[in-house]
Amino acid sequence: MSRKDKMRLGAFMMIPGHHVASWRYEHSNAEGVLDYSFYRQVAKTAERGKFDMVFLADSYAVHERFPLALEQAVQVRLEPLTLLSALAADTERVGLAGTVSTTYNEPFHVARKFASLDFISGGRAAWNVVTSHTEDEAHNFNRDKEMLHDLRYERAQEFVDVVRQLWDGWEDGALVGDKEGSRFADRSKIHRTNHQGKWFQVQGPLNVARPPQGHPVVIQAGASEPGRELAARTAEVIFTAWQTLEEAQSFYKDIKGRLALYGRQHSDLKIMPGVFPIIGRTEEEAREKKARFEELIPVETGVALLSGLIGFDLSPYPVDGPLPELPKVEQVNGIKSRFQLIKDLADRDELTIRQLYQRIAGARGHREIFGTPEQIADQLQEWFENDAADGFNIMPPYLPGGLEDFVDLVVPELQRRGLFRTEYEGKTLRENLGLQRPANFYAERAVESSVTAG
Amino acid sequence: MSRKDKMRLGAFMMIPGHHVASWRYEHSNAEGVLDYSFYRQVAKTAERGKFDMVFLADSYAVHERFPLALEQAVQVRLEPLTLLSALAADTERVGLAGTVSTTYNEPFHVARKFASLDFISGGRAAWNVVTSHTEDEAHNFNRDKEMLHDLRYERAQEFVDVVRQLWDGWEDGALVGDKEGSRFADRSKIHRTNHQGKWFQVQGPLNVARPPQGHPVVIQAGASEPGRELAARTAEVIFTAWQTLEEAQSFYKDIKGRLALYGRQHSDLKIMPGVFPIIGRTEEEAREKKARFEELIPVETGVALLSGLIGFDLSPYPVDGPLPELPKVEQVNGIKSRFQLIKDLADRDELTIRQLYQRIAGARGHREIFGTPEQIADQLQEWFENDAADGFNIMPPYLPGGLEDFVDLVVPELQRRGLFRTEYEGKTLRENLGLQRPANFYAERAVESSVTAG
Repeated sequence: MSRKDKMRLGAFMMIPGHHVASWRYEHSNAEGVLDYSFYRQVAKTAERGKFDMVFLADSYAVHERFPLALEQAVQVRLEPLTLLSALAADTERVGLAGTVSTTYNEPFHVARKFASLDFISGGRAAWNVVTSHTEDEAHNFNRDKEMLHDLRYERAQEFVDVVRQLWDGWEDGALVGDKEGSRFADRSKIHRTNHQGKWFQVQGPLNVARPPQGHPVVIQAGASEPGRELAARTAEVIFTAWQTLEEAQSFYKDIKGRLALYGRQHSDLKIMPGVFPIIGRTEEEAREKKARFEELIPVETGVALLSGLIGFDLSPYPVDGPLPELPKVEQVNGIKSRFQLIKDLADRDELTIRQLYQRIAGARGHREIFGTPEQIADQLQEWFENDAADGFNIMPPYLPGGLEDFVDLVVPELQRRGLFRTEYEGKTLRENLGLQRPANFYAERAVESSVTAG
Repeated sequence: MSRKDKMRLGAFMMIPGHHVASWRYEHSNAEGVLDYSFYRQVAKTAERGKFDMVFLADSYAVHERFPLALEQAVQVRLEPLTLLSALAADTERVGLAGTVSTTYNEPFHVARKFASLDFISGGRAAWNVVTSHTEDEAHNFNRDKEMLHDLRYERAQEFVDVVRQLWDGWEDGALVGDKEGSRFADRSKIHRTNHQGKWFQVQGPLNVARPPQGHPVVIQAGASEPGRELAARTAEVIFTAWQTLEEAQSFYKDIKGRLALYGRQHSDLKIMPGVFPIIGRTEEEAREKKARFEELIPVETGVALLSGLIGFDLSPYPVDGPLPELPKVEQVNGIKSRFQLIKDLADRDELTIRQLYQRIAGARGHREIFGTPEQIADQLQEWFENDAADGFNIMPPYLPGGLEDFVDLVVPELQRRGLFRTEYEGKTLRENLGLQRPANFYAERAVESSVTAG
């Protein structure tokens, strides 16, 4: 092994699977999409496999991008923070990462909920910061239109800063509990945030003490220019979507290169591209499974998913023809990086619309790999050892079987190669990811901002 | 027993106790205020005692009403929805009631989180609707001042209506899961909310199906005129604070009398006043315990707590003198009913400021009862059998011991008298409370509002 560090692994809990037609697959649990015991089973499987964390994506709307979208797509899911809190009670070591948007929430609530989850789980909470780009979501929060890309990221920057300051409002050791002296807390270690910004005015402090991890781990997924800056400045884990080694290496180098500007080290941020693995005991079995998934995709769903990913309606065009002329990336108000990636893929391999949606419907823009456990391990190892990834976010096509296969077949192979842990290193997510516990903003600066009498 | 119905019981989980100096009490667990296992122990004790539910109050700020408030008062707590979700995994039958404000939240989030908790818990979720009246909270959400009383309630009315409609967006049976027919959901049973109101515009539907209870149970605590109307129209449980049988009867009669106006039955709403019980194996032991709690209250804390409850600063006045001249109740922008209650109590019993805070510091305005298990049971029975209460929200002065005493000593006495259940009647909170599962707004009206193609 050429690297001292171990590979990090996240398990993407999209129920009943990451493939768009996963619920139709004969071995997937389509009835269990709102059944907590299903999620518990998946989380326990990830913990058995020594995964760093389980990860929940989220959205604040149903998306009806084509007439049958509500019939053919799984549009219901449990809410991340409630679900992860329940899983905190049912697991012991696996990290609990949830998506919460900065566009439709308030920093006080978000800081407090993740702090609370961090206490409940004994230091295993992680927040995936997203900015919500769909109009459907805007319509559920009193708005006619989605917020523009640059404004969303401007708000996100300020939001994350406020949340971090709120997490620091109570210094470690602020709770004294001195019954005799009638001193429950040490007020010299409690600090108001007093934030007055463009987007937020937050007095603070939180009504919860500093979380066990200091700060829950902050995750980011944006790959656009403002997304990269936000990540380089504030993220500790990045989830990304890259198809080729070269693209992933270029992104890896770019992001790691930006860290110094913010006084951060190379190891302060883990880059974990998404991987969609189709695992067979033989190559033939994997190939058959892949073909089976592709044929399960209804045409309308496939075209719609592709349209949604690029923010352009493809339904009027022949499904066995090429992509039509698309707008320039600068005109896209959705996920710019995803748009570019799909367009490049279609151009490179000269794919029809059908071929393109079959290629991306499972991985939804992420890297699809298939084969035997050894072949899967090879493909992960290649990226890991060539400065393309610090680890991977594993997106099983269907659940629970897809994750069980990974844990039972691929994890042992990674362990044999010395690439992956055989036991958790620590109790907190931060310890397992090899991330330092952050210093306290106020304690470090010895700021004269202790709370004064009201 | 003169009533067919059984008494309902809630356990108020204020950690480490409802008494303001509970954390100083030698038998309270002051170190565990942010320790999840403490809450779990309390919830499991409540479940052992066959309580209908555990209940979490909440606030979105620390409150610094006097110079030592951050030192002497417990200002940290876990966030209700994360905490209750963890407890859902660790309990099986007890209901899980959490406070969430309509002033600093969005209906979509609130509907979704409680729906999610309802799924995770198998139908045990309840939402306590509050409107947040303090300036401290306003300062954490971009505002200079708290919202005025009437506006808060106007917003709350609309908020609750939207949440209920969102819960109905997916009819029961909307999820089909037909793999062969490629039909995951039946879109004729999915309805957009399309709410366009003064406070909210929400398209809906939720991205979660109708909760197991249809609607999680809705709880209300306001006792002002708009609070009573909101409760009569929308609440299924009311928590109230009354000192005397007469006051409680008057309120009970008033609220039950308003139900018909909204097409509701007498049994559709359970009135559960708060009760602060100090239990001794002998009357003498109870009396000593009561005195012990009173002497634990630091003067500054006592005066401040009283000032906060009435929204008027008493710190300049002699602690062993009477209450000064107070503003009229109409001028109060806090909890009007609580103000009136405390003022009436001081006038009636001619109490000094110290005597008054000692009287209310534990119960914080709720009814304090003390004595042997038989005497406690007598006092509960009196209210229950005389149209003053359908049940009680039990507020143990300290935890876990105060609740353990109630469960081990008072509950068996209530059961002997046939006043309280010996086993849970159902699996959902609604079943245990004897509340009907609500009809679906859309299904009932057969509204032509099924979602159309976007």
